[in-house]
Amino acid sequence: MMTNQPLTNPPATIALDAMGGDYAPSAIVAGAVLGARLHGVGIELIGHEAQINAELAKHNTQGLTITVVHTPDVVEMGEAPAVALRRKKNASIAVTAQRVKQGYAQAMVAAGSTGAAMTAALLHIGRLQGIDRPAIGVAMPTSGQTPCLLIDGGANADCPVELLEPFARLGQAFMQGVYSLASPRVGLLNIGTEAGKGNEFCKKAFALLSQAEGINFCGNVEGRNLFTEGCDVAVCDGFTGNVALKSAEGMATLFGKLLKRELMANPFNQLIGLLVKPLLKKAMRPLSHDEVGGALLLGIQGICIISHGGSSANAIQNAIGLAKKAIDGNVLEKMMAIGATSTPQ
Amino acid sequence: MMTNQPLTNPPATIALDAMGGDYAPSAIVAGAVLGARLHGVGIELIGHEAQINAELAKHNTQGLTITVVHTPDVVEMGEAPAVALRRKKNASIAVTAQRVKQGYAQAMVAAGSTGAAMTAALLHIGRLQGIDRPAIGVAMPTSGQTPCLLIDGGANADCPVELLEPFARLGQAFMQGVYSLASPRVGLLNIGTEAGKGNEFCKKAFALLSQAEGINFCGNVEGRNLFTEGCDVAVCDGFTGNVALKSAEGMATLFGKLLKRELMANPFNQLIGLLVKPLLKKAMRPLSHDEVGGALLLGIQGICIISHGGSSANAIQNAIGLAKKAIDGNVLEKMMAIGATSTPQ
Repeated sequence: MMTNQPLTNPPATIALDAMGGDYAPSAIVAGAVLGARLHGVGIELIGHEAQINAELAKHNTQGLTITVVHTPDVVEMGEAPAVALRRKKNASIAVTAQRVKQGYAQAMVAAGSTGAAMTAALLHIGRLQGIDRPAIGVAMPTSGQTPCLLIDGGANADCPVELLEPFARLGQAFMQGVYSLASPRVGLLNIGTEAGKGNEFCKKAFALLSQAEGINFCGNVEGRNLFTEGCDVAVCDGFTGNVALKSAEGMATLFGKLLKRELMANPFNQLIGLLVKPLLKKAMRPLSHDEVGGALLLGIQGICIISHGGSSANAIQNAIGLAKKAIDGNVLEKMMAIGATSTPQ
Repeated sequence: MMTNQPLTNPPATIALDAMGGDYAPSAIVAGAVLGARLHGVGIELIGHEAQINAELAKHNTQGLTITVVHTPDVVEMGEAPAVALRRKKNASIAVTAQRVKQGYAQAMVAAGSTGAAMTAALLHIGRLQGIDRPAIGVAMPTSGQTPCLLIDGGANADCPVELLEPFARLGQAFMQGVYSLASPRVGLLNIGTEAGKGNEFCKKAFALLSQAEGINFCGNVEGRNLFTEGCDVAVCDGFTGNVALKSAEGMATLFGKLLKRELMANPFNQLIGLLVKPLLKKAMRPLSHDEVGGALLLGIQGICIISHGGSSANAIQNAIGLAKKAIDGNVLEKMMAIGATSTPQ
């Protein structure tokens, strides 16, 4: 199943599902090459060897540590992840997770189905001790230097309120490790900032987070505060988080559409459009899926980054960069310490 | 308490709380003058007569039917609405609602505290028969001709799933009356579009809406679909709706900030900024609070529009325009028919 296994691993190796996402394997392989060079990491490309090698041949890989781990199976986008992964034990996403579990790689990156990546990670890497249910962390862009990590972005649609405490701890560990924040502020996503606001779930969550030791709880935050550095980690149930994410995404898309329409309205506007386009592109870069790299699967015994299905090579490169930062920042060790110290429920 | 009562009412009269909002009474009075002229309606300005008249004197009101209803009391922004309204029976917001109840006006417009407007409307106008709990409807901007009406925008943070059915009917009535849509499509705000997606609340709501007669239910919609004409009415509990609203608002603000930063980055960019600024302003108009006019309080026996606290004269003018459309479209009659035909619970 494996080929070209390197004799010595470089400081960090990242396992990459080469077959996931709309533009696989070409965009994934191109992103791997970019990422290996830019971030100085080793890459394992997991998937169909012949296809991957054909793509690799298009790039200059001199001096890079890129290995291919062959596996013929792929979980297709339409398949139910749990069913598909039981049937296809050697699916690329499964082997990607196994590479982390077996210690060949310190992180995994997968584009495409969140469900498949999550199921594979749970099945083959496993949950962190003391963490009942993993969550999705999404780095929301802000006008400041660091993003706001929203947890849960959608893994737990029906979410017991008690989960918000481990979400907060996992988020803190990530923001400490990746962004070197000494004491990340945790906010509760709510519909008002004053204590006592919100639905019953939020009222319970507020009491829970207020009393939790070792959490730098800064109170309620509103949807708009996700983008204003109102807090470093915002916790909520997965349903609310997903609605917040997608509503913001919808607004960004509408904003872009309205702007484009105006800049195309007449020849004079089109001329201004030509001038302003590069500036617009630069200004909007923090909002791009490409720049963010991907969402984080938190609560498993490994670093797992799930990139957008439509990921470009640059998105994969950024996901590799994020994985590298998480490895360098000892995020996993920090998260394992949470599990070890948390009281079993 | 009243002065200058007109002998004959014009086709529509709108009662306006002149004392509500951050820029009252000046912005409210200015908006009233604009609105009366632009929309051909009569306006009753409710509040402190001397202050209102001083503002009115600054405008040309020739040919307009603007009357002043004097009342000295005001509910202040910091006050708990229910307590304040019990104590100040003649608060401007209370008298504004009473004017509708008494038939002097066919709609009310109030800027500032949503809670105060809601409490006053419930207390003095009353609920529609068969509607247990009123909701906030917010017209979300889309790239198309008509907005998507999101219900509930925050009145019912803890919301029994059964309420989504009247929300849908109220939304349909509004969209029929104001935008002449024959059969407005109702979507359920969820975290996936396929049937069976979402949390338990959504699964129950989906079943309920699927079976409800007379509701043109088009299934689940996601947060991003609020802005894409994915449906004409999107229903959800008030907590979710408020998070969606504020997250989208936060993203729009961030988008603007990032753009501004880039357009200020250097003298060359500043020059492009000068050229593009009027286009930007025009493009973004649909997203402005000013253009939307206000949120709707649905489920009471009257038309009630609640404008943003920071409402400008133009926002008030647009709120008056929206009220006029609701009156002309017989929205109240359509809503009363819902109550009459709904099965008591």
